[in-house]
Amino acid sequence: MKTIGFACTSADTPLAPFRFERRAPRANDIVMEVLYCGICHSDLHQARNDWGWSQYPLVPGHEIVGRVIAVGNAVKRYKIGDHVAVGCMVDSCQHCDQCRKGEEQLCREGNTQTYNDKDRITGERTYGGYSKHLVVREEFALRVPDGLDLSKAAPLLCAGITTYSPLRTWNVGPGSRVGVIGLGGLGHMAVKLAAAMGADVTVLSRTKEKETDALALGADRLLVSTDEAAMIKAANSFDLIIDTVPVKHDINPYLPLLDVDGTLVLVGQIGPLAEPSTVPLLLGRRRVAGSPIGGIAETQEMLNFCAKKNVLPDVEMIRMDQINEAFVRLERADVRYRFVIDMASMPAPEAV
Amino acid sequence: MKTIGFACTSADTPLAPFRFERRAPRANDIVMEVLYCGICHSDLHQARNDWGWSQYPLVPGHEIVGRVIAVGNAVKRYKIGDHVAVGCMVDSCQHCDQCRKGEEQLCREGNTQTYNDKDRITGERTYGGYSKHLVVREEFALRVPDGLDLSKAAPLLCAGITTYSPLRTWNVGPGSRVGVIGLGGLGHMAVKLAAAMGADVTVLSRTKEKETDALALGADRLLVSTDEAAMIKAANSFDLIIDTVPVKHDINPYLPLLDVDGTLVLVGQIGPLAEPSTVPLLLGRRRVAGSPIGGIAETQEMLNFCAKKNVLPDVEMIRMDQINEAFVRLERADVRYRFVIDMASMPAPEAV
Repeated sequence: MKTIGFACTSADTPLAPFRFERRAPRANDIVMEVLYCGICHSDLHQARNDWGWSQYPLVPGHEIVGRVIAVGNAVKRYKIGDHVAVGCMVDSCQHCDQCRKGEEQLCREGNTQTYNDKDRITGERTYGGYSKHLVVREEFALRVPDGLDLSKAAPLLCAGITTYSPLRTWNVGPGSRVGVIGLGGLGHMAVKLAAAMGADVTVLSRTKEKETDALALGADRLLVSTDEAAMIKAANSFDLIIDTVPVKHDINPYLPLLDVDGTLVLVGQIGPLAEPSTVPLLLGRRRVAGSPIGGIAETQEMLNFCAKKNVLPDVEMIRMDQINEAFVRLERADVRYRFVIDMASMPAPEAV
Repeated sequence: MKTIGFACTSADTPLAPFRFERRAPRANDIVMEVLYCGICHSDLHQARNDWGWSQYPLVPGHEIVGRVIAVGNAVKRYKIGDHVAVGCMVDSCQHCDQCRKGEEQLCREGNTQTYNDKDRITGERTYGGYSKHLVVREEFALRVPDGLDLSKAAPLLCAGITTYSPLRTWNVGPGSRVGVIGLGGLGHMAVKLAAAMGADVTVLSRTKEKETDALALGADRLLVSTDEAAMIKAANSFDLIIDTVPVKHDINPYLPLLDVDGTLVLVGQIGPLAEPSTVPLLLGRRRVAGSPIGGIAETQEMLNFCAKKNVLPDVEMIRMDQINEAFVRLERADVRYRFVIDMASMPAPEAV
């Protein structure tokens, strides 16, 4: 089907309007009109080919909220008019042990990414949510629960599930002591979600500057990580630290903060870490882990949880034609805390 | 009480006979005659002050097996003639949450190390098992089960418990897929213990050279870590990898071998690790952890397990006066797999 989006055609060209053909809907597909799409830092990385696997033209966007406008004959879960959402993946093998467990993000054959990937059947390029329409098999669409503000829900599909999933994997609940490093798109969701689960939440930051914001987001306190005395006092006082820092960094200052059997879970950086010391790991049986997004069932659980607990990201709404400016601001972390594109601002196809 | 041992008097002098005074036995102490003492790589590190906290004269030794020759009035568990063992620690606060859980190795106030530490009551220097006698409070003595070969049991007190504890923490049992990196004192015990627990055990080694030994120790196979095709084929096939390498090294080649939620647990290196990549951690929700020795109850459980399953280290028995030569050989990993000192070879006090 024909649609319009914003694409970049090389690593160093800005995003611009792009008319393109989406794959023809199949019997188990839904067609959605995209209403809102969040901007993830990884959109920027892939637009610029920072990871070396970008294919152009590239239409980013994997925090997608919309409305069903057509359904295939075999579609059972959704009907026209339903509010649905799509995150980072649009398909997986559906038969491996991980898929059968509902962990499609860990599919043995690799899941199909929402953009910059290939359709499993036709091999056609996948294009993301910076576009007017999306075609997706129903198993990879989430239901947006009634009462969840559509204009704010989009970032839950990546920033939300990426922080919700480790909170669930490591059994966070009332009484859990959770630290959050990095107060960006992911970090601010980690704070809100952990607080909503009843945890005691501490934001770790290099200065006191973000204290008011941290408390407003639901944190119980801010711990200044450059304050040596405060850091020593906080030793052994965390069950889980969610580290959202998206660049190479040094985790050594944070490891002693973990209690025995505590875990620092990395969700931001994809690449090297500075040399860690094994001393705090061995002496306190501490752990370091990584966590990707979550499975489809867990993503639905997260959306339902957010609707019930009224947890939503803090968003800044932009028009589609502000995307290149938003990328520049994102690069200097100048957003509180997630940009969302209002797709009503997409130019009409005939205008392009 | 007066006794004799072997001590080094500085970081660069060899060990030599040393007459010294042990603390006077208290009501809850036992006095043991040391029969055998294993040689741990950390003895060498501390003799040479590699970690910077050595106090001289220093009597190493924390893999100690002996016989009770005197008991204090308040001692309940042991009587004269009992075979007992002492490992890396001789005391702890006994009232913190970790001690109450039986995890004295993780005592909030720090446990008291068997040597190169200070007695909690008198502040006197602690001296290790390279000596004729040891005084220890009964709570930190282990019972050597009947049927466990006294001449081989000593290395269980450090090499044994250091590998047994993570196998238990990470619930290894029949069907578990366990990898072991490094086939030295700790590594060979990890293989034997994991095999005795019913796990499928793979030794990871840079060459095929150790294959016969690995299989003889109970491993199911040896995987050559420099064989790229074999390593790719082995991806996602381990639940737990015990990494016993005692120097700075690169764990990146091993991380993809872990299955989803699998853990690489470091038990050898105390210090920096080469830069790890977060990619295998994030993409497979994999984990890296450290683990120290175990608690007293778990150490007793390990001794009982070894007696029941007939698990013993492969040892090379030496005389006390061969200690400096043994240190040289230990440094070039020339031992299969643990030196044990026969304390009957200790010179008589009057000869010194």
